[in-house]
Amino acid sequence: MNAEQHFDMLILGGGPGGAKAALRAAAKGMKTALVEAGFLGGACLNVGCIPTKFLLGATASLPLFAIQRKYKTAEGEARFDLCAMQTRKERYIEGSRRTLEKELLAQGVTLFHGKGAFTSQNGLAVSGKEKTELSFGACVVATGSLPASFPGLKPDGACVLSSASLLNLKTPPESLIIVGGGAIGLELGELFHRLGTRIILAEVMPRILPGEDEDVSEAARTFFTRAGWQVHTGRRIASLSTLDGQACLRFEDGETFFAATALLAVGRTPATTALDADKAKLNLNAKGWLATDEHLRCAEHVYAVGDVNGRTLLAHAADHQARYAIDHACGATAAPYAPPPMPACVYGSMEIMRVGPTETELRRAGVAFSRSQAPLAANAIAQSYGHTHGFVKMLWVDDTLRAVCAAGHGVSHLVTAAALLVQTGVKKNLPLPVIFAHPTLDEALESAIVAPRQNI
Amino acid sequence: MNAEQHFDMLILGGGPGGAKAALRAAAKGMKTALVEAGFLGGACLNVGCIPTKFLLGATASLPLFAIQRKYKTAEGEARFDLCAMQTRKERYIEGSRRTLEKELLAQGVTLFHGKGAFTSQNGLAVSGKEKTELSFGACVVATGSLPASFPGLKPDGACVLSSASLLNLKTPPESLIIVGGGAIGLELGELFHRLGTRIILAEVMPRILPGEDEDVSEAARTFFTRAGWQVHTGRRIASLSTLDGQACLRFEDGETFFAATALLAVGRTPATTALDADKAKLNLNAKGWLATDEHLRCAEHVYAVGDVNGRTLLAHAADHQARYAIDHACGATAAPYAPPPMPACVYGSMEIMRVGPTETELRRAGVAFSRSQAPLAANAIAQSYGHTHGFVKMLWVDDTLRAVCAAGHGVSHLVTAAALLVQTGVKKNLPLPVIFAHPTLDEALESAIVAPRQNI
Repeated sequence: MNAEQHFDMLILGGGPGGAKAALRAAAKGMKTALVEAGFLGGACLNVGCIPTKFLLGATASLPLFAIQRKYKTAEGEARFDLCAMQTRKERYIEGSRRTLEKELLAQGVTLFHGKGAFTSQNGLAVSGKEKTELSFGACVVATGSLPASFPGLKPDGACVLSSASLLNLKTPPESLIIVGGGAIGLELGELFHRLGTRIILAEVMPRILPGEDEDVSEAARTFFTRAGWQVHTGRRIASLSTLDGQACLRFEDGETFFAATALLAVGRTPATTALDADKAKLNLNAKGWLATDEHLRCAEHVYAVGDVNGRTLLAHAADHQARYAIDHACGATAAPYAPPPMPACVYGSMEIMRVGPTETELRRAGVAFSRSQAPLAANAIAQSYGHTHGFVKMLWVDDTLRAVCAAGHGVSHLVTAAALLVQTGVKKNLPLPVIFAHPTLDEALESAIVAPRQNI
Repeated sequence: MNAEQHFDMLILGGGPGGAKAALRAAAKGMKTALVEAGFLGGACLNVGCIPTKFLLGATASLPLFAIQRKYKTAEGEARFDLCAMQTRKERYIEGSRRTLEKELLAQGVTLFHGKGAFTSQNGLAVSGKEKTELSFGACVVATGSLPASFPGLKPDGACVLSSASLLNLKTPPESLIIVGGGAIGLELGELFHRLGTRIILAEVMPRILPGEDEDVSEAARTFFTRAGWQVHTGRRIASLSTLDGQACLRFEDGETFFAATALLAVGRTPATTALDADKAKLNLNAKGWLATDEHLRCAEHVYAVGDVNGRTLLAHAADHQARYAIDHACGATAAPYAPPPMPACVYGSMEIMRVGPTETELRRAGVAFSRSQAPLAANAIAQSYGHTHGFVKMLWVDDTLRAVCAAGHGVSHLVTAAALLVQTGVKKNLPLPVIFAHPTLDEALESAIVAPRQNI
């Protein structure tokens, strides 16, 4: 065992939150270490957002071509080789990991490969090839999250897969049962649908994307159903298992579906079990997420950022929290953490975008609001692609734009403009702060701003 | 001849500027007439932006598929039927015209079909099926622009075509000579390149897109050259004509190129010749554009908006000027016309985007500035599509973001976010006003904001 090493700032986890925290801490002159048990880049780069978007981007021509074939303006056939795409994807991810590692080392961050577990309120042991004892002045826990599973509902190493395993398939299955109608289930369903897989989607809640706007859920359901997916919502699941070499989904009402493969995508669970959190007296909530105060601290001198604090399970939220944690740790800010409206997207042919609260969230908070809406069918760029199903919706509180959500082809491209419109506080009946270029999909935002409002 | 009819507001031209002016004037309670000699919607809807973008959108799968074939991740063939696409395009344009007409009539605008010519400072004659005399309290001239031509360099009704004629071809030519490396030439070149046409592009100026950033021009030239285009810049043209059933381009140095068809796209000229502008004492500048004062007036009570005033030849500029003209005419504003930064895009696989001045414009104005830049190759979404050629560039004056330009796949999607970033006055070294979602192409804007700056 080496002698104990001391760091001003110790970061646990090398995903988007941890890496950003380490780079920022080192840039501010802190002696910084980062401990990562798996790959640098975290779930986002290695088994989440990036591989999914890489494969969706690589196959983006397929839905565009399909709609033109439907219109009889095009013919022919495009065949994609998933195995070859995987090779390119792996090369890109490996390259990104190497770039991140170089960046961390260049900034003077000391990297430890191994599992980190607290030994005291300012001590941590790393179990890697050898065991290393570290002590720290301050710490950022950014260990992220893992796919959730439940008794009778977990990946079985046979036909029932996690998203990480599904993302590494070399050939598309003939059919795929997806349990979970959130972002992960829909994006991976879209990918394999493009590659010819028959999709059966099951969501326990009454609608897919249960956390999103109700009209958004409805638009998405219509889109995927029209594309030929079987979509089951509001039905309790008895089991998901491998039976005679097939994935078998059994609903509590007895109906049973079989497919070549199944994806379990029923949420995420905090990656805290290996931390020995009690040794550092970290606050955990009932579900195991690190409970943070208004300064993102889960203990004196210990911050929790990203998925592991359960606030917002998005890579850019982790990044934003990481910046704050380091600034707070080094005294650059004393104000409570108050992020601007958090943008979120679901990718595919039917994309989803949101900035700010949903109608349901405003209603629950007792806030009076009005809404305005514009259909994508009225937009020239949506028409040009032939994908016109969907809309942009805006929520207004006291004549000020409070939230934007959208469903439809390409609407992920609207998310930063929407965030800026919300952030600059667009007022109804005042001149727009910007000229919208014509023709752009962005004009759907303008159309929604000037559309008649309906008080709720 | 009917008795003279009087209108509070008379609009000449039913393009983006004229239609917006008419709708806004009528909404404000003015008795409003609109005179249009051709189709409602103007050049933009009928022979310009919209048909071009419609055909580029319809064929958007082709460059995405081509890059995957190059990577050997896909194989197969996609064949597009230009004739069938034209049918869909015409249907969409006709529908849009009808929608606009209904909107104008519903708002109470009186429509006159025919050529409008001034008879006095408050009188106009419309020559349609019959001749109508109109008088007006105020007038907005929004007659737009026409393709420019020069002696020896004009469409000849045979192989040398205007953009409007090229846009209506039912089959793609085997080869196409394009004279003019501006937005129109590049977008139509891209469309026919996708459909298999061999492209020869000639630009008299030293670089294509001569009004854009120099690095943008260079990136575009590299892209199109790699795609197999022959690009000739800085060479004077002796003639473009039809010779033995072929289009023939002869440079002054004697070199000659032949192609099945040629497009002449060498700028625009104001549509003022039929106006009898002198009868209304309208101010024209030396090149024939209507010369406007700080309130967009070219005479007492006569406004000129859109292309015809020569300020900014973009549909959304016309729209914005039209709003101002009506507001000024009815006394809602007395301030000089001062638009926010004007966004502009060129569409295709290699897209161009700009908001604010170019480096050249700042240098000429004697403004000290710095620049920062981010390559698209560092962006995960650009990587996912496999189209990574290009960059986002930002220009800063006194630590404040003043301009953004970009070249590369999909960068037209950045234009509104860029305009909002410029408009909100992003400062170097201050927290960003917004969280950028990950992964998005928009993050290339964030990368350019935080990139090191180089003083110029």
